[in-house]
Amino acid sequence: ECRMKKKLIIDVDTGVDDAQSIMVALAAPDVEILGITCCHGNTSLENVLKNTLRVLKVCNRLDIPVYKGCPKPLLAGKQNAGDFHGKDGLGDVPDPDAPGLDLLQEKRAVQAMLKIAKENAGEVTLVATAPLTNLAVAVQLDPSFPKKLKGLYIMGGNTESRGNTTPCGEFNFVADPEAACIVLERFTCPTYIASWEFSCRRSLPWSFVDEWLSKDTEKAAFMKKISSLSMTKARSAEYQKEITAGKGFNPCDVFAMAAALDDSLITDSDEVAVTVELAGTHARGMMVLDYMELLKKSHKVVIMKNVDSEKLKQMLINALK
Amino acid sequence: ECRMKKKLIIDVDTGVDDAQSIMVALAAPDVEILGITCCHGNTSLENVLKNTLRVLKVCNRLDIPVYKGCPKPLLAGKQNAGDFHGKDGLGDVPDPDAPGLDLLQEKRAVQAMLKIAKENAGEVTLVATAPLTNLAVAVQLDPSFPKKLKGLYIMGGNTESRGNTTPCGEFNFVADPEAACIVLERFTCPTYIASWEFSCRRSLPWSFVDEWLSKDTEKAAFMKKISSLSMTKARSAEYQKEITAGKGFNPCDVFAMAAALDDSLITDSDEVAVTVELAGTHARGMMVLDYMELLKKSHKVVIMKNVDSEKLKQMLINALK
Amino acid sequence: ECRMKKKLIIDVDTGVDDAQSIMVALAAPDVEILGITCCHGNTSLENVLKNTLRVLKVCNRLDIPVYKGCPKPLLAGKQNAGDFHGKDGLGDVPDPDAPGLDLLQEKRAVQAMLKIAKENAGEVTLVATAPLTNLAVAVQLDPSFPKKLKGLYIMGGNTESRGNTTPCGEFNFVADPEAACIVLERFTCPTYIASWEFSCRRSLPWSFVDEWLSKDTEKAAFMKKISSLSMTKARSAEYQKEITAGKGFNPCDVFAMAAALDDSLITDSDEVAVTVELAGTHARGMMVLDYMELLKKSHKVVIMKNVDSEKLKQMLINALK
Amino acid sequence: ECRMKKKLIIDVDTGVDDAQSIMVALAAPDVEILGITCCHGNTSLENVLKNTLRVLKVCNRLDIPVYKGCPKPLLAGKQNAGDFHGKDGLGDVPDPDAPGLDLLQEKRAVQAMLKIAKENAGEVTLVATAPLTNLAVAVQLDPSFPKKLKGLYIMGGNTESRGNTTPCGEFNFVADPEAACIVLERFTCPTYIASWEFSCRRSLPWSFVDEWLSKDTEKAAFMKKISSLSMTKARSAEYQKEITAGKGFNPCDVFAMAAALDDSLITDSDEVAVTVELAGTHARGMMVLDYMELLKKSHKVVIMKNVDSEKLKQMLINALK
Ligand SMILES: [Ca+2]
Ligand SMILES: [Ca+2]
Ligand SMILES: [Ca+2]
Ligand SMILES: [Ca+2]
Repeated sequence: ECRMKKKLIIDVDTGVDDAQSIMVALAAPDVEILGITCCHGNTSLENVLKNTLRVLKVCNRLDIPVYKGCPKPLLAGKQNAGDFHGKDGLGDVPDPDAPGLDLLQEKRAVQAMLKIAKENAGEVTLVATAPLTNLAVAVQLDPSFPKKLKGLYIMGGNTESRGNTTPCGEFNFVADPEAACIVLERFTCPTYIASWEFSCRRSLPWSFVDEWLSKDTEKAAFMKKISSLSMTKARSAEYQKEITAGKGFNPCDVFAMAAALDDSLITDSDEVAVTVELAGTHARGMMVLDYMELLKKSHKVVIMKNVDSEKLKQMLINALK
Repeated sequence: ECRMKKKLIIDVDTGVDDAQSIMVALAAPDVEILGITCCHGNTSLENVLKNTLRVLKVCNRLDIPVYKGCPKPLLAGKQNAGDFHGKDGLGDVPDPDAPGLDLLQEKRAVQAMLKIAKENAGEVTLVATAPLTNLAVAVQLDPSFPKKLKGLYIMGGNTESRGNTTPCGEFNFVADPEAACIVLERFTCPTYIASWEFSCRRSLPWSFVDEWLSKDTEKAAFMKKISSLSMTKARSAEYQKEITAGKGFNPCDVFAMAAALDDSLITDSDEVAVTVELAGTHARGMMVLDYMELLKKSHKVVIMKNVDSEKLKQMLINALK
Repeated sequence: ECRMKKKLIIDVDTGVDDAQSIMVALAAPDVEILGITCCHGNTSLENVLKNTLRVLKVCNRLDIPVYKGCPKPLLAGKQNAGDFHGKDGLGDVPDPDAPGLDLLQEKRAVQAMLKIAKENAGEVTLVATAPLTNLAVAVQLDPSFPKKLKGLYIMGGNTESRGNTTPCGEFNFVADPEAACIVLERFTCPTYIASWEFSCRRSLPWSFVDEWLSKDTEKAAFMKKISSLSMTKARSAEYQKEITAGKGFNPCDVFAMAAALDDSLITDSDEVAVTVELAGTHARGMMVLDYMELLKKSHKVVIMKNVDSEKLKQMLINALK
Repeated sequence: ECRMKKKLIIDVDTGVDDAQSIMVALAAPDVEILGITCCHGNTSLENVLKNTLRVLKVCNRLDIPVYKGCPKPLLAGKQNAGDFHGKDGLGDVPDPDAPGLDLLQEKRAVQAMLKIAKENAGEVTLVATAPLTNLAVAVQLDPSFPKKLKGLYIMGGNTESRGNTTPCGEFNFVADPEAACIVLERFTCPTYIASWEFSCRRSLPWSFVDEWLSKDTEKAAFMKKISSLSMTKARSAEYQKEITAGKGFNPCDVFAMAAALDDSLITDSDEVAVTVELAGTHARGMMVLDYMELLKKSHKVVIMKNVDSEKLKQMLINALK
């Protein structure tokens, strides 16, 4: 028997939840990660590169090529998520044995994306869990890039104007609103979006997390260490103002990855045309859902509304085995 | 025994739901309507004036003073709700015996508001179910106006970026975003907001409506006649795109009025600072809720989340007796 | 012989140059000042009221009615010109004998404007040398106000994106961009605009100023005193960055007033449709000139390009006699 | 003796004036054109490519590598200059012997720019006479690109809010405002800007043009043919609304090229920090000059104010020899 492997490109700004997302992908059966492209975001690009290599090392998968992408958004000012993920983006737990940046590929992330998609036309799924700068530059460089993708899974954007970074804006989209808009306008491949409000509603109970992190494996120890800071923050009163519903553990990026890995994960969704508000004093970077079909866009995306939480938990558990 | 009467100013753009709201107020016990101020909105100011007089005539209350307010928004282009409420704003059912505009007061609406509030300082509740132009001009003319109000009840705005007029914008706010912003910034009196999404969620079943309109009274006959067009539209597929949830009869403006009339109507609410997005390609006119407290505003409004539907129904029933 | 007097309303935010402008009007023959309406602007409304009364007292014209207008712009944040005109708006030279605010009229500025224009329909010229808040509220309250004016003369706005307050914005327009836009959109009476760039180009030589202020009159002494601070600033290197051309004494507001007083003052002008940019990170408040006729506006204004400087000087000289 | 050649990359949207600019460069002594990169703009990218090859063919310089760049702006809607330069961008005079697109390089424009700059670090002058999309993508892909340039010469932008495409916007900047902003923010190499207003003021007399085009050379015949349509338009009443001053022949792009070729061409200029207004109803795409130094930018550009017209004419004459 010959089952076709899912081919992935993962675009990250690693970040604790990006780390979780990568580890979920590494643990999934029948998946081939063709490259991990790094982008500014939760922390500086240099930290993102280092963090990504640390995750791969813990999983013994330093064979996967890691690429250096855009260090800055197209036009937006710098956003900083350092208060949540730690200054180094990975919980501020120093690792003296972190792999060196000499392990990075020479080719730039954008060009690697284009090359991989060209060589695997119609077969590659792109999972984007960072600001969308790399994707926006890629489509500008090669307008045919989206057509070569099998699908695009994004963690980012708001569905109900409930921001976590600005009053109405989610971090990944606010960190590069122009890039987010370019991607939502130009990527006409099948597109699935895990929004901030959705991820809040599908948070997992802390009791699951306690059990999840208690396993006696190297990966679990690593995850426990890097997620300690953000989990403490996530239980704070201040953080409760950011969330729209659902107290508990919100592994944001994992929702997009899990949906990409398992076609049966999404149990409820809307299909709607979307764009991004680029002007606006308070709403800049907010995703706009055109339920009234006023924008006359033919391309619609899948807005995730519910997932099979048990499958999600199992994926998380497998990731730390 | 001597119970204090609730003193009201009602600012309207009559409109079928404004008509319902006025009739609910007229039927309420212990209420004194000190004036009805008219504003552009659902239809032309001239139609709004005529419609308001028609409603008062049916209820035998032409003694209530009606004032002519602003025929235009501050800066916004013209919005038109004529497709829903009818060209004349009241279901396009001509009334040859409609009262003449000579019954209007000479004083302008804005000046009447200021005078009534001054003469009844601390005792007047303002119920605003139209674009907020009159209120914005009033506070600009007399910055102390809001302090003289007991409370302000508004139908308008979005809480979840789910527009009914533009992708993210509700009609009353989009019809004069600058006025809405001025009101939310300057009216520091206790303020209660019935948003579009809230009103959708609390829609009433069509079975109730059928019963409600079937009474053998002059008022019920009038209501049946003027609401026929909009209720047909409300059951159409096209209209379903506008609503965020809750199929059924949505008497928008009545939610704000009912909350003003009965302090126990609101059963769940949020207190949050709000403003209005004035820039923005898609989000202009959208209400912004500052749950994260990034705007550092001390004044918070009450965002209605749930009401006692049985009380609401009883008020509607009383209105047609 | 019976010559018709010019009837004026003057809207001010007094300000050294407003003081000069008022004194030029008071010295003009055949002019009747029906009222001076005060607006926030160069300094707080309270200071503006006090300064206006001080100017009238020096000229023995406390008989002219002075009205209290809007203390705040419609929506804009507070601008401060205190560094140029002094904290009190009039050069920070205390006057222990300043007239008290009890001399003010009871009627509000906006209502006074409307009443005066109604009672003198077609005969009143409005000279506006402040942020345009009062005018914007007036037209909102009574849309027929502009039609009752003989003409409108404005000091404000940019013609070449050369700001003095923001990179592209002039003080009076930036201090209330929404009001400026409302006025340029709704005042369809003959309208004359003295822009910032124009006033810079037509600056007067310092040698004239020295002679002008050296006269041995009470008015000259007053003018010398209140203008000392701003003239020192006007000769500074920092100020040179604000001006587009023309070193020397720029009596901004006087250009608008002088044009209103003498129909032959303007020797060159453009007729062009104008509006105001309300959005924009850098250009908010900038006047937009539609030379290409893309906005399809039928109403055009007169943009002043040159004036008879000798006549202007003579008016200034007469003002201090 | 060994004189160093000027090394150029030319970024074009050919266009009649781009054609003139390329021909001026080809005729200049001691110049080496390392590549011509094509961008959407005056006409479709396909036309731009074809037009560029036609120009090179007339000049017998098809050896110069031509690269295909971005077919679309980052985010802006499509602008069309087809009414001025003709539908094909080159005066709508069909050429049955036009070279085929098989002559284009395989490498993409952006990557070619980066490679050329890397291989000639510090020695390449970039002359950009098109929307700035290619440059913006290049700097996003390689943030060190600007540092490798000797200088950047741009035709584009406004200095006095006098638009030729929108009320305040010049074509090249309006055609991709985000790209223009990225370039003005990130290209910290010595930068020289020939604005729309400047080019209008330095227009050449029609008498010169008549003489210029009358030479009996193949190049003159070609120029006469392709410029016939635009020159007719340039003499029309409609066109006069676009120009700020100076009637006559405006070879826009040539000003930027000529300044790049001859360091002594610019005889007057301002040094000022600049950016681009991205929001704005009327001013989107307008260049903003920060004379007041409010933006606190350390990098300043050279805004061309005057040039040696005799040298310019001689360059144009040499181009058609
Ligand atoms: Ca992430
Ligand atoms: Ca209403
Ligand atoms: Ca003034
Ligand atoms: Ca060009």
